[in-house]
Parts: sequence; C-alpha cells; structure tokens
Amino acid sequence: MKKIRTIFPVLFVLIAMIIVFTHCGESISEKTEAPGELTELQKRTLTFISPLPEHAFEEGMNQSQEIIDLGKMLFFEPRISKSGLISCNTCHNMATFGVDQLPVSVGHGWQKGPINAPTVLNAAFHISQFWDGRAADVEEQAGMPILDKLEMAATEEHVLAVLASMPEYVERFRAAFPDQEEPLIYENVGNAIGAFERILVTPSPFDEFLKGNANALTQEQKKGLEVFLDVGCQACHRGVALGGDMFAFFKTPKERETGEAHPGRFGFTEREADKHFFKVPSLLNIAKTYPYLHDGSVWSLAETVNIVAKDMLSKELTEEQTQLIVAFLHSLTGEIPAYALEIPILPPSTPQTPRPRFDI
Amino acid sequence: MKKIRTIFPVLFVLIAMIIVFTHCGESISEKTEAPGELTELQKRTLTFISPLPEHAFEEGMNQSQEIIDLGKMLFFEPRISKSGLISCNTCHNMATFGVDQLPVSVGHGWQKGPINAPTVLNAAFHISQFWDGRAADVEEQAGMPILDKLEMAATEEHVLAVLASMPEYVERFRAAFPDQEEPLIYENVGNAIGAFERILVTPSPFDEFLKGNANALTQEQKKGLEVFLDVGCQACHRGVALGGDMFAFFKTPKERETGEAHPGRFGFTEREADKHFFKVPSLLNIAKTYPYLHDGSVWSLAETVNIVAKDMLSKELTEEQTQLIVAFLHSLTGEIPAYALEIPILPPSTPQTPRPRFDI
Repeated sequence: MKKIRTIFPVLFVLIAMIIVFTHCGESISEKTEAPGELTELQKRTLTFISPLPEHAFEEGMNQSQEIIDLGKMLFFEPRISKSGLISCNTCHNMATFGVDQLPVSVGHGWQKGPINAPTVLNAAFHISQFWDGRAADVEEQAGMPILDKLEMAATEEHVLAVLASMPEYVERFRAAFPDQEEPLIYENVGNAIGAFERILVTPSPFDEFLKGNANALTQEQKKGLEVFLDVGCQACHRGVALGGDMFAFFKTPKERETGEAHPGRFGFTEREADKHFFKVPSLLNIAKTYPYLHDGSVWSLAETVNIVAKDMLSKELTEEQTQLIVAFLHSLTGEIPAYALEIPILPPSTPQTPRPRFDI
Repeated sequence: MKKIRTIFPVLFVLIAMIIVFTHCGESISEKTEAPGELTELQKRTLTFISPLPEHAFEEGMNQSQEIIDLGKMLFFEPRISKSGLISCNTCHNMATFGVDQLPVSVGHGWQKGPINAPTVLNAAFHISQFWDGRAADVEEQAGMPILDKLEMAATEEHVLAVLASMPEYVERFRAAFPDQEEPLIYENVGNAIGAFERILVTPSPFDEFLKGNANALTQEQKKGLEVFLDVGCQACHRGVALGGDMFAFFKTPKERETGEAHPGRFGFTEREADKHFFKVPSLLNIAKTYPYLHDGSVWSLAETVNIVAKDMLSKELTEEQTQLIVAFLHSLTGEIPAYALEIPILPPSTPQTPRPRFDI
C-alpha cells in the first residue's frame, strides 16, 4: 500500500514531464490550431497588424493600366534628371528591394543626401512620405527628388520639355489622364509614378500567416513573433506595413555620439515638439533594406533590434530574444510583383529633347 | 496613214509612262519577288550582311543557364563597384538599349570617361571589344570597367570579397563552373557576365528581311537599303552586326575642330599605324544608341550619316538619300530578349560584405 502511494506521485511527475517535453517545441499559441481556425498567436497579431491589400489604391483613384505603365516608365526614366543618368530606380533599385543599400544616397554631382533612402515597396501604405512626412502621399513625394539639387537636380521645365519632346510620352500622358485637356503637367508626373508605387506591394510568408496559414512561419519565426509582441514592438510597428503610420522621437547612437542629429519632422513643421521626430519605418522587407536607422549608420539587423528595443521600449533583450525577433523579421521579406521587375523600353529622344548637363 | 504613224510613238510613250508610274513605288529588287524566293535586293544584301544567330556562343563554350543567370546578376550588381552604386547596367542600361545615351559615361566620383559607351547588345559578335579593341572578347571586356578608376573603381580583391560574403553567390559560382575547384575567381566574373552578354541578341525587321521576308521592311526602308549599298556603307558596316568586324581611321568633326583627338587603337598597341583607328561601330539598334561617334559629339542620326559618308566614302549625300538611309537604319532596331529585361533579385549582404566607399 505504501509502495503504491509512492509510485503515484512519481508516475504523475513522469507523465507531466512527458507532456511538457512533447509540447516543448510548440508555443502556447499552437494549442487551438485546427484547419480553418486561427491560432491564438494569429488572433493576437491581427489585433495590431493586418494582411497586405493587393494594392494601395484608394476608392475613386485613377488606377488604369495606362497610368501605371506610364508611372513605371517615368520611374525608370533617367532623362528627367539633369544629367540624364539618374532615375528613381537609381536609389530605389528594384534589384535590391527598392533601396540603394547605402547609408545615404548619392545623387547629381556625386553629392550625398542628408538621410537614408527608404524603400518604395509598400510605401504607399504609409501615413505620409519621407522620414519627416513632408509629402502627403506617394504622388506628392514622387515629384520631389526629381527637383532636389542633391538628387536628380532637374527643374519642372526640364522634365516637361524632356517628356513633351517624345511623341510616345505625349500620347501616354493623354491615355493616362483622358479627362484632362492638358495632361502633360508636372503634377501628373508624380501622379503617374505614384500610381506605379501603389502596386508595389510585396506579400510575404508573414502575410500568409496573417491570412490564416499558421504554418507559413517556421517555429522559430513564430516564437520570434511572440517575443516581438511581448517586448511591445507593435506599439509603433503596427498596421499593414508594421510601421509607417506614426512619428516618434529618435536619435541614432551615432547622432548621440557626434552630437549632430538630423532635425527630423522639425525641419518641415518648425514646431519644437517635432524635433528629431521621424516616421516609424516599416518593417516589411527589413532584412533586405539595410543599412538601418534614418542615418543608415547600422548595418546589422540584430544590432538595430537591440538599439530600438532599448531606446524606444527600455528593454534589454537577451541574445536569444534578439535572434528570435530577427528570425521573425525575415518572414517579412516578400515577393516584388514580376511586372515591377520588367524593365520598360523607353522611347528614343528627339532633336527637341534637352541634352544632359553634368554641372552642379 | 500619216496620222497612224504619229499615233504609234505617242501611244508607245503613254504606255511606257503608265508602266513607269505603276511601278514607281517599287524598287528594282521587287521584280523577282515570289513566295519562298529571295528578291535581288535580299540576295545583294546577303553578300555583305548575314542574319543574326540566336546567340553568340561559340562551339565548346559554357552556355549553361547557371552561368547566364549568374552573369545577369553580376551585370545588375552594384556592390561590385567601390561605391556600391554603379553596376554594368548603370552605363549599359537595358531600358535604353544597353547604353546611357550620354556623350561619355559618368562613373565613380562623377568622373567622366574618355569615350562614348557602346551598347552591350549584340556586342559579342564584334571582332574584339571596346572602341580600340583592347579586349579580345566580352568575357575579357566585362572585367575591365569594374576595375577602371573612372568607372566602377573597384579592385579584384573588393569584388571577390563582396561575392564571397554572400552564400548565394558562392553557390551560384559553384553551379556555373562545376568543373572548377576554386570557381570564385575574378576571371569567372567576366566569364559569367560575358555569357549573359552572348544572349543579348536583338532580332529586328531587317533580320526578318534577311531571312526571307521581303515585306519586313517598308518600301522606304528598302530604298534606303539600296542607297546604303550604292553609296558603299557595307564596305565597313557588314557582317551580322553591320560593323564591329574591322578598324578604321576616324576623327570626329569636333576632334578636327579642337585639334584634340582620341588616340584610338594606338593607345593600346602603341603602333603609329593605329593612331586614331577605331573599331567600326555596329549599326544594330543605332536609332536608339545616340549620341553618335566615338566621342558622342553628334546627336542626330542624319547628321552622323552625312559625316561618315563624306569622311569615309567621300560621298556628298542628297537630302533624300540621307533620309532614306536613316529610314533603313530604323529597321535595325530589334527586340531585347525579355529575360534580359527582368531585373534579378540580388542576395542580401552579410556582415562580411565590404562597405561602400565614396572617396575617389
């Protein structure tokens, strides 16, 4: 009788251990996993983050194939720059996920820009454009680097003269803006490029996961997602783009060290409260859009995760936590639409096309 | 009787005039046109010029999909440049028929090159590479601008360190050169890019014409081809590429005017006889690869035709002749293979990848 009494607790502990070890590799969120039903982790994630829509057009927007095709041509068109050498794709290179993978971009006359170039992929989902949000949308944004002295260094007159000199562009502007009497205006350059950007949506394994397929992420990535949520990253990195929908105060370690910090949104609003406020970057395709932070001063994703967790959430991550979050972040690398990767053939210049100029 | 005698010559002249006017729009070459049979013009042309092969690989060359895919990635790879910004495609832009449409290219540090960048399309058919022929083939050529201080400004060590830092490239070199123990060597960078260039073949309406379809050219283009042959352009612009198979003495009007002329092949051979000798440029896609001549000093194709006819053949062309030749030259604009227009997705950098450097 005594022996049996001793065996029972031992058996109980053994059975409990077997249960614990068997389920060791599974996270708590797996428990309710069943076909067609969302896991706890999926449900929890969906309260902060939504799957990507197919495109970023809003109700009533011109989303004809004509405007998208024109926008793509303009995106790859170097002749709208002063030098005839630099196109949107120079710094927002499709081969490298819509960025140049440089700390700051290099433009006309080998001049360096003041800030890291963000990717154009999924950018249309952001609350506004540029790190400081000074452009309301991709349409407004697209027209600005073309005129920036450090970037493409053109003038509106130059751009319109270039485009008006080629009958194919004149025809394409007419087709893209059929209701306008004078479609070849500078505003429509941005409108067309913006339309192209609105289809630059990159569904990823994480997107599959959000849409219901719990196996779209690896076990490690799911654990990483849990750590991501436990740490609280979704406080800023939320919505369809895991970022891009709010502004936050941020100085990079390099800026703190040198004492020279970018003014951020203050440079645009001139409100004291906006000093060093930057748009929270999207985490989509983050594994491909290094170097990181607004000055492009950090190349390692793990290091970036640590810096941001500490600065923004006062959390010191363990090595394992960092590694898991990084694994999760890799699930945000998506597929660029094949259409965006097909280089358009540009129409030939004519005697009326302004010549390239290399002076600064 | 006298009346009849007068009527006969008048009738004869009338009938002759009707025959002449009826056939006015047709060139002499049409006379023997029949299905499956070559016209006189086709036969005449084929004695100087051959249709394009499907690719430019020679017997025994490695032409696996693996080497071509790797070559395409390297062609679009900016990280093999010192700055991480410039790729082969920067100056040999597929969107603009494999050229930058600039007089001379702009490279590392916004430095200008000494000569106009020729197109990579169909370049593998040339007798040798560069205007001065200093590279034997596209494989040898491809490795040179990467190391040129004015162009991509890299070193062999930099290029190999960049490629060795990314597991995907290491694997791709292994797959592209399966028989080599150490495939990741600088020579193979050129070998792979060269393999990609060997498929950059652009069949045109003129190519259709040479292959038997006499209607692939317009009447105007056929007349232009006749003028082209009558004037004697095929003396130099012959073979599959209508050029690229010999060297000739040439100074551009600008060079004559300024007295500063590029040394041409002399700069490479240092033989007096090679002074100002340049490889005869190919005419394929010539309507798209302006500006013209080795210094890119002339933007008009018609003007170029006149300059070359006068300088090389001592022929003063009439306005009509020039216009017809230009019409013919437009029939040489071909189709870039769709594969070459699909931007490859490049593998992500790693902590071992050398960082971009912008100093000159």
